[in-house]
Amino acid sequence: MNNLKITEDILDITAIINSVSSKECGAISIFIGTTRDNCLGKKVKKLYYEAYESMALNQMKSIIGTTKEKWPEIANIAIHHRCGEVKVGEVGLVIAVSSPHSKESHDVVAFILNKIKTIVPIFKKEFYEEGGNQWKSNDNCSW
Amino acid sequence: MNNLKITEDILDITAIINSVSSKECGAISIFIGTTRDNCLGKKVKKLYYEAYESMALNQMKSIIGTTKEKWPEIANIAIHHRCGEVKVGEVGLVIAVSSPHSKESHDVVAFILNKIKTIVPIFKKEFYEEGGNQWKSNDNCSW
Repeated sequence: MNNLKITEDILDITAIINSVSSKECGAISIFIGTTRDNCLGKKVKKLYYEAYESMALNQMKSIIGTTKEKWPEIANIAIHHRCGEVKVGEVGLVIAVSSPHSKESHDVVAFILNKIKTIVPIFKKEFYEEGGNQWKSNDNCSW
Repeated sequence: MNNLKITEDILDITAIINSVSSKECGAISIFIGTTRDNCLGKKVKKLYYEAYESMALNQMKSIIGTTKEKWPEIANIAIHHRCGEVKVGEVGLVIAVSSPHSKESHDVVAFILNKIKTIVPIFKKEFYEEGGNQWKSNDNCSW
C-alpha cells in the first residue's frame, strides 16, 4: 500500500511509520528531513515550501512505480511532504519504506529521496535571521 | 548525544527520534527492525532475544566511537534493542541518526546495523507456529 501526501499540517511520523508496517516485513527504513538553523554560513529562521500539488503527487506516484519495478520485494511506501512554513527543527519530509530485509528498504529510501529532490515540483525558500529570503535550488544546501 | 538502551519494554519510537533531533541537522535516518511472520518458509510466531547486557552496551559504545571517527559530522545516535519476547509485528531494534545532511545519516544507519549484527552479543531464537524453536545466527534470516 502506498501513502502519499502533501500538506500544510504538521507531519505525524508515528502514523506514517504505522502505515507502512507489515507482518511480512522485518525492516522499516525512514528518512526525516527537518529545517536546520543554518545554511552556507547564514542563520536560517524557517523554510517555506511551495508545491505544484497535482503534478507533485503525480511525480511521487511515478517514483513509486519506478521503485517497485526495480525492487519488487518492497512492501509499502509512504511519502509525506509538508508545504507552507516549516520552522527550524520542524519536519518537512518523511519517507518510510518497509521490506522483508533491511538492504532493500535502506536502498529504496535513498533512491526515493534523490528522486524527490530531482523530479518533484516542490520549491524551497529560505528565510534568514538577519532578514531577507532566497529560493533554493536542489543542488546546494539540500536537506 | 548518544542514547543506548537494551530493554524488555516496548520501544518508544517517537521518544527515540526526538532524542536525536537537533536544530543544526537537516536529516534523521532511522532503521526499525520488526519481527516478521516467516523465515525460510516457516511461519514464525515470535522471537526471543537474549542479551549479554553489559558487554552488548560496551560494544554499542564502541560502535558509536568508531562511527564518530569515520563520520565526525554526525550529531546524535540512538540505538535501542529490545530483549525477551518480541511478537510478530513488534519492534526489536531502532537505530536513529541525525546529521546536517542526508548522505551521512543514511550511510551511518547501515554501518551501525551491520556492526550490531556482527559484534553485539544479542542472540535471537525463533519460535514457529508449527511448534519448535531455533537459535539463529546472523548470517541467515537476519532482519
